[in-house]
Amino acid sequence: MEVPAMKLNINSQRLEGRIQRLAQIGKIGETGVCRLTLSKEDREAVDLVKSWFEEAGLQARVDAFGNLIGRMEGRNPDAPVLMMGSHIDSQPYGGRFDGPAGVLGALEVAQTFKEQGFVPEMAVEIAAFCDEEGCRFNKGLFGVRGILGKLEDGELERTDKNGITRRQALIDFGCDPDLFESSRYRPGQIGAFLELHIEQGPVLESLDQPIGIVTGISGPLWLTVEFTGFAGHAGSVPMPMRKDALVGAAKVILALNELASSEPGAPTVGTVGSLSVFPDSRNIIPERVRFTVDLRDIELSRRNRLEMLLREEIDRTAAEHGLTYTITEDTNSEPRYCAPAIMEGMRRGAAKMGLTPPELMSGPFHDSLVLSYVCDYGMIFVRCKDGISHNPKEYASIEDLSLGTELLYHMALEMASRKTAASSAQGE
Amino acid sequence: MEVPAMKLNINSQRLEGRIQRLAQIGKIGETGVCRLTLSKEDREAVDLVKSWFEEAGLQARVDAFGNLIGRMEGRNPDAPVLMMGSHIDSQPYGGRFDGPAGVLGALEVAQTFKEQGFVPEMAVEIAAFCDEEGCRFNKGLFGVRGILGKLEDGELERTDKNGITRRQALIDFGCDPDLFESSRYRPGQIGAFLELHIEQGPVLESLDQPIGIVTGISGPLWLTVEFTGFAGHAGSVPMPMRKDALVGAAKVILALNELASSEPGAPTVGTVGSLSVFPDSRNIIPERVRFTVDLRDIELSRRNRLEMLLREEIDRTAAEHGLTYTITEDTNSEPRYCAPAIMEGMRRGAAKMGLTPPELMSGPFHDSLVLSYVCDYGMIFVRCKDGISHNPKEYASIEDLSLGTELLYHMALEMASRKTAASSAQGE
Repeated sequence: MEVPAMKLNINSQRLEGRIQRLAQIGKIGETGVCRLTLSKEDREAVDLVKSWFEEAGLQARVDAFGNLIGRMEGRNPDAPVLMMGSHIDSQPYGGRFDGPAGVLGALEVAQTFKEQGFVPEMAVEIAAFCDEEGCRFNKGLFGVRGILGKLEDGELERTDKNGITRRQALIDFGCDPDLFESSRYRPGQIGAFLELHIEQGPVLESLDQPIGIVTGISGPLWLTVEFTGFAGHAGSVPMPMRKDALVGAAKVILALNELASSEPGAPTVGTVGSLSVFPDSRNIIPERVRFTVDLRDIELSRRNRLEMLLREEIDRTAAEHGLTYTITEDTNSEPRYCAPAIMEGMRRGAAKMGLTPPELMSGPFHDSLVLSYVCDYGMIFVRCKDGISHNPKEYASIEDLSLGTELLYHMALEMASRKTAASSAQGE
Repeated sequence: MEVPAMKLNINSQRLEGRIQRLAQIGKIGETGVCRLTLSKEDREAVDLVKSWFEEAGLQARVDAFGNLIGRMEGRNPDAPVLMMGSHIDSQPYGGRFDGPAGVLGALEVAQTFKEQGFVPEMAVEIAAFCDEEGCRFNKGLFGVRGILGKLEDGELERTDKNGITRRQALIDFGCDPDLFESSRYRPGQIGAFLELHIEQGPVLESLDQPIGIVTGISGPLWLTVEFTGFAGHAGSVPMPMRKDALVGAAKVILALNELASSEPGAPTVGTVGSLSVFPDSRNIIPERVRFTVDLRDIELSRRNRLEMLLREEIDRTAAEHGLTYTITEDTNSEPRYCAPAIMEGMRRGAAKMGLTPPELMSGPFHDSLVLSYVCDYGMIFVRCKDGISHNPKEYASIEDLSLGTELLYHMALEMASRKTAASSAQGE
C-alpha cells in the first residue's frame, strides 16, 4: 500500500537516529545485534537510552530488576499510570528492531508530549524491561514479572552457559536483588499498557499494510510426543511387519498441518519444529522418534478442539503402526486478549491518520503478556520484511515504524487526556 | 513348525559347542559380542577357529588380507574350488551368530566329509573372511574383495577412530600387505560359493520355518534428500504462507512407505532411517530437512519404477510446499541372484530332510555379494528370533542352526560329488 505522505506529530528523524544509534551497541555484521540481557552491551544500551529519557525530560531510573523506567508526571499523581514500552535486550543472533522499536517509539511519544506542552492526566511511564528474550538464563520476561511480583523460586540461581547466576549478573549490572520489594508495583498502580512491536511474521507484508492492531497474544500449547516402535534391518523386515516410529511421526506431522489449516481464515498455527530419530542410521528402521508440537490459536476453544483431534490421531496412528507413545505437556498458555476499548481507540487514532489497519493476533509473546494479567493492554504491530525476526536480517522501514509510533501517540494522547487510563477494572 | 526329530549327518553338539566357545571371545554382557576386525579379540578368534580347521584335517592359513582359509584337497587339484564360509568379525554391539554360523557350519560340513571318508571331486575351502562388517574402517567386505582384486585406492590408509590405519592393523594382525598379490585368486579358480547365515530379519519366524533358501541379495538404492523451505516463528507465520521443510519430508516418508507396500507379497522394502531438522527448535518452522532413503527389491525393474515414482512425489511435494530440494545418490547396487541350479539343489537337499523351505531374498548384503561377480553362489538362511541382529539379543536356536548346516552338507555333498562345482560359466 502506498501510504500518502502525512504530517506526523512524532519526530521520525529523531526516532530513526536513535534506532540506528542503539543498534551500534552489540552490533554484529552490518545489521545484526547481540545484546544479551545484563551483559556489558546491555548496560551500555541502558545507559544510552536512559540519557535519552532524561533528554526528553523524563525522570529515569534503573530498578532492582534491571528495568529502565522513565516517568513523566501527570496532573493526578495518584491515578493509575499509563505505561508504554518493550525491551532492549536481544537474541544472540538478533536484529535491530525486536524490542527497541517499542521502547524508542514510546520515548518518542513522551518527548512529543513534552514538546507539545501536553500534560497527561496521569503519570506516563516508559519501560525498557529487563530480559524479555530469556536466551541467557533460559527464562524470559524477567523484569516485567519482577515488578508484578511474579518471579518464581530459584530464578536468581539460574545460570548462563558460563555458570554465572542471574543474581550475580544483576549485581554486576548494578542492581541489588535485596531491594526487589522496593521496585514492585502495587495492584492497580498500572492503569494500562501499550506496546509497539515489529510483527515478527509476514501477515502485514502480505496484506501490503504498514501497521496492524493486535487482537491478543495466543499462548502456545507445547507438547512433546514420543513414538516407540521396533528397530530392524532396513533390508530384511518386510513392510507389513514393520513398527516404524518415523512413519508414525510423519502421519502426525501431516495431521497437525492439516488440522491447523482446516478452518480457512482462522489464525490457528501448528508446527513440528524439532524432531529426533533413534538410532538414526540409514539402514535401520527407526525405533524411537521424539518430536515437539506447537499449537496456537487466539480462540482457546478451537485450540482445545484441535488438540483433542490431534491426540486422537496420535492414538490412531500408534494403533495402526504397532507403536507405543507418550505425550508430555510442556507449556499450556491461555490466549490473552487486548482490551476492546484500546483496540477501538486505536481504530479511531488510525482513522485520523487515514489508515484502516488490519487486526491480527500475535503468535509470539511479549512483555504485554505479563501485564495483561494486571491491566488493560493494547499492541501495535509494524510490518517487518519477509516476516524475519530473531535474525540479523530483521528489518522494518522507518516509514512504517513512524506510522506505528504516530498511532501509539494518538492512542496515548487519547488515554492520557481522560481521567483514567484504565477502560475497565481488571485485576488478577 | 514342529520339525520332526531327524538323524543328522552333521554333529549338532560339536557345532553348538564351537559357537558357544567362539562367543566367549570379545563377549559383552551375557549374550553379546564385540570382536572388531583385526583386533586382539579377532586374532584370538582366528587362532581358535584355525585350530578347529586343523583338528578337522584341513590345511589352514591366514592370508595377507587377514582371511582364515582352510582347504580340503579333492580328487582333481585343478578343478575350480567349492568355497563355503562367512566371517567371524562382529559389530561393536553385536551378537553370537552373524557370521560365525556360516564359518562354523561350513567347518562342520567339511569335518563330516572327513569323518565319512568322503573325498570331494574338487578342493573344498572354508573361509572366514576378514572384515565383512566394515565398522572399524567404515568400509566392509574387505577380505573377500581382497582375494578377488577388488580393493580400491587408499583402502589401506583408512583409519579407525583411534587413527590406526588398516595397513597398520593388518601388520599388527600378522599380515603383510606387500604380499597381497600372492593371496589373490585367479579368475575361474573358485567354482561356487555357499554361505549359511542367520536371516537378520523376521520372515522365517513369521512363517514358522527353521530355514530358508535365499533367492538373491537385493542391493540397496541409497539416496539422500534435502528439502529447503523458509524458517519463521512458529507463532506468527500463517499456515497458507509456510514453506515447512518437515511437512514436505513427512509426505515423502509416507509416500515411500506406501510405494514399498504397494504390491502385496513383493519383497520390496523402503525405509527412511535417518533424518535431521534445521534449526530444530520447537518454535521455529523447519527451514531444512535432510533424510535418507533406502529402497531394495530383488527385481531391479520394479525398484527402478518405484524410484521414479518416489522422485516424482518429491518433485510434486516440493512444488506444493514452496520447497527446493536436492537428491544425492549415495549407493546404487544391483540385485545379485543366487544360481538357479544351486537353489534347485537346495530344494532337493531339503526334500531329503523332509523340508520345503520358503524362498526369500536377502536385504542385507554378505560376503556372497562380492563372490556373486566371479562364481555361482547360494545362501541358506536360519531363522532368527524377532528378526534381531547386530545386537546382543541376536539369537538362533541350535536346532535351526543344525538344520541349516545339514542342508549345507547335502548341497555341498551333491556339488562336490560332481566333476565341477560350477553349474555355469560366469566370469566378470
